[in-house]
Amino acid sequence: MTDQLSDAGVRAANAQFYEALEAGDLELMDDIWAKSADAVCAHPGRAPLRGWEEIRASWQAIISGGGNPQIIITEEEVTMRGTVAWVTAIENMISGGHTGAAAALNVFEHDGRRWWLVVHHAAPVLG
Amino acid sequence: MTDQLSDAGVRAANAQFYEALEAGDLELMDDIWAKSADAVCAHPGRAPLRGWEEIRASWQAIISGGGNPQIIITEEEVTMRGTVAWVTAIENMISGGHTGAAAALNVFEHDGRRWWLVVHHAAPVLG
Repeated sequence: MTDQLSDAGVRAANAQFYEALEAGDLELMDDIWAKSADAVCAHPGRAPLRGWEEIRASWQAIISGGGNPQIIITEEEVTMRGTVAWVTAIENMISGGHTGAAAALNVFEHDGRRWWLVVHHAAPVLG
Repeated sequence: MTDQLSDAGVRAANAQFYEALEAGDLELMDDIWAKSADAVCAHPGRAPLRGWEEIRASWQAIISGGGNPQIIITEEEVTMRGTVAWVTAIENMISGGHTGAAAALNVFEHDGRRWWLVVHHAAPVLG
């Protein structure tokens, strides 16, 4: 599904990212990210990381830290511009009895074969 | 400058957005945004707004509220993919004696004539 140059293909790619995060599955996370020096990842409340190596290390730390959050995605909207697409959504997180929300903006690129996540930008939505 | 299909053109468009915000200049703000139903704007700590009308109303409220922040942009990086480009930067804000930082992700589109801001996503960077 993540190969389809369509709205559905983008949604499948976005779903894979959240599946990886929720399951704490680093292999699935590795599989969805662009292995690019200009990949960007901003975890909620933190300064953005740039480049796949730094981003991967952060996911490794988060996933090995355990306590994977349950994530309920709402208000998902896809915007496609040729081989670039972005998704906005609200991440509703439940973790260890705490809840929180972040506004996510995820940018994907299609390389002719499939979609890759090149930017994940999570902005905490404050009470 | 905002017409150039280049890194410099994107930087000029990004600079216009911050100039509008810092100066509290709604006309300049109107001029940079895509008048699109799928434009998105997430102000720091708030849920994203979608569609130019809602976004414009929010800027009008912010600007008419006065107390325009001083904004110092650091770590600006441009990524171009054809007629789509995005900028990541840290917004260092000084307003009424308070300081704060947000990680911004701004997406621009070139319509053959010039760059337009289609997504502004500001994520508070917490202490």
